Amino acid sequence: MRAPSVAGSVPELCSWRDGATRQTIVDFVTAVTTEDSADFVPPEQRIAVFDNDGTLWSEQPMYVQMAFAIDRARTLAKERTDLCEHPVIAMAAQSGQEKALMGLGIPGLLELVGLTHADMDTVEFGEIVRSWLDVARHPTLQRPYTDLIYQPMLELMAYLRTRDFRTYIVSAGGTAFMRVVAEALYGIPPEQVIGSTIKTNYVHNGAAPRLIRRPEVDLINDGATKPGTIEKVIGRSPLMAFGNSDGDFEMLEWTTACEGRRLGVLLHHDDADREVAYDRDSTFGRLDRSLSSAPQQGWLVVSMRRDWHTIFPEVT
Amino acid sequence: MRAPSVAGSVPELCSWRDGATRQTIVDFVTAVTTEDSADFVPPEQRIAVFDNDGTLWSEQPMYVQMAFAIDRARTLAKERTDLCEHPVIAMAAQSGQEKALMGLGIPGLLELVGLTHADMDTVEFGEIVRSWLDVARHPTLQRPYTDLIYQPMLELMAYLRTRDFRTYIVSAGGTAFMRVVAEALYGIPPEQVIGSTIKTNYVHNGAAPRLIRRPEVDLINDGATKPGTIEKVIGRSPLMAFGNSDGDFEMLEWTTACEGRRLGVLLHHDDADREVAYDRDSTFGRLDRSLSSAPQQGWLVVSMRRDWHTIFPEVT
Repeated sequence: MRAPSVAGSVPELCSWRDGATRQTIVDFVTAVTTEDSADFVPPEQRIAVFDNDGTLWSEQPMYVQMAFAIDRARTLAKERTDLCEHPVIAMAAQSGQEKALMGLGIPGLLELVGLTHADMDTVEFGEIVRSWLDVARHPTLQRPYTDLIYQPMLELMAYLRTRDFRTYIVSAGGTAFMRVVAEALYGIPPEQVIGSTIKTNYVHNGAAPRLIRRPEVDLINDGATKPGTIEKVIGRSPLMAFGNSDGDFEMLEWTTACEGRRLGVLLHHDDADREVAYDRDSTFGRLDRSLSSAPQQGWLVVSMRRDWHTIFPEVT
Repeated sequence: MRAPSVAGSVPELCSWRDGATRQTIVDFVTAVTTEDSADFVPPEQRIAVFDNDGTLWSEQPMYVQMAFAIDRARTLAKERTDLCEHPVIAMAAQSGQEKALMGLGIPGLLELVGLTHADMDTVEFGEIVRSWLDVARHPTLQRPYTDLIYQPMLELMAYLRTRDFRTYIVSAGGTAFMRVVAEALYGIPPEQVIGSTIKTNYVHNGAAPRLIRRPEVDLINDGATKPGTIEKVIGRSPLMAFGNSDGDFEMLEWTTACEGRRLGVLLHHDDADREVAYDRDSTFGRLDRSLSSAPQQGWLVVSMRRDWHTIFPEVT
């Protein structure tokens, strides 16, 4: 897997244009990290949470993990006689069926994810994802998905880490899927990745015990579930929350309602020239309620068009 | 809450007697932390997991959290008319019913925990636990439960941290209950506490959103479930695992089956004079299968009688 930019080596916020947005972020971080500030927060409590799809990397025309599931279904349709006639696998295995798959809604998509992500342990799953990322290409841009991460967000996370923040992913994406890219692309270690999970079985019928992934959803880490998983895993309320869709509403709402100074940030995809422009009507990453609520909630809305010098890292 | 010894300020392993047990631990830690060693492991992968009840603090004559649940049931029987006639609450509210409660088995005990730990948010729950710990006393020793932590284990965790290990609790105890004591008593931050959980609801019907604990079990983090929660939350296999009962069997088995040098440690309560002697027949912390398997599995068995100079911290 190619990692275009190792977080930590990027200069501080140089892809962010000068202006109110950048200043709001810097002012907030300065306030909570300056010892004689009224808003000072000790390092161990400095938590920032980030959605992944659409916040750290591109989610259009569909989530990267969905593209993986479809490609994986095509492989399984050839390799696994027990699965090739399963309706959702058979549908995914035909080309051009992406729209029909979306028409199945969440239950159908979860079934597809369950079937294509299970019956192996996490190490094997990680290898399959890694191999896929090496060859898969974005359908229109023809670039590796791992190139399509947001340079300004890499700089922001690196900046926060130099101020002793821990940067967590809190996303509806699969934990095991995201861990494959999180460390190399974003500098986020596995224990700071909180996502959706499928169930596992502890089995010991060979030389060594294994944790086998089952085709059954354990938790969908989206919407009103996000605050609960943050509490369950981290046990602290974040100081900052970054999202880009209505699935991040409660995470931002809960973060910014907690006592003390907090910052909620929404990334608005409004740059059709350099990426994609979408919000209220999008199938993936729909941004409607969150955008409408932002002024009243005091959330910072980042305009990719206005606030970012560059979108993607330069690949050398 | 009184914290008898802040982890980090204790001298290195001075409560451990010289001998093969102490030496095995020191040799292991030296091997995985010495740069030119064949077993060297980089700091970010240095994870040690600890059971809590019976491994870090006393679990006899019953788990501390069970004593809390019974006392809490007595309070609720007086305060909550909707709960006072509930069979398990009514039973717990009568004195001397501990044995009858145990007779209800796991389903009855889980019901008791659910009812006594719910209908509030985590902050409120933490305050109730903290207030209880301030006044509750061990039934025979008449000392605060927070005094009955194991001094040699505090030293061991502090020693590991100076070698860049992260020390996690992985226990069947409740996450929210253990977090109340983990930082003050053991120096373990909330995000390194992995326990059993009850479900929460994200509710927003007042000034601010809240996460309300529901009287419904989410996960019992015991036995074969422990490796799965370690993978889900940490995403790395531990180098060391410490337990004291059959509920820790799979955690030790999985840890020591992973590639590279690993160490599984069982704490054997064999000191009737200074603590309690129990193993194969105990209701709480039964140690049978794990003890029988230790030689074949290569697990280190710590004899509290033989290997420890002192059991509990000196309270000043």
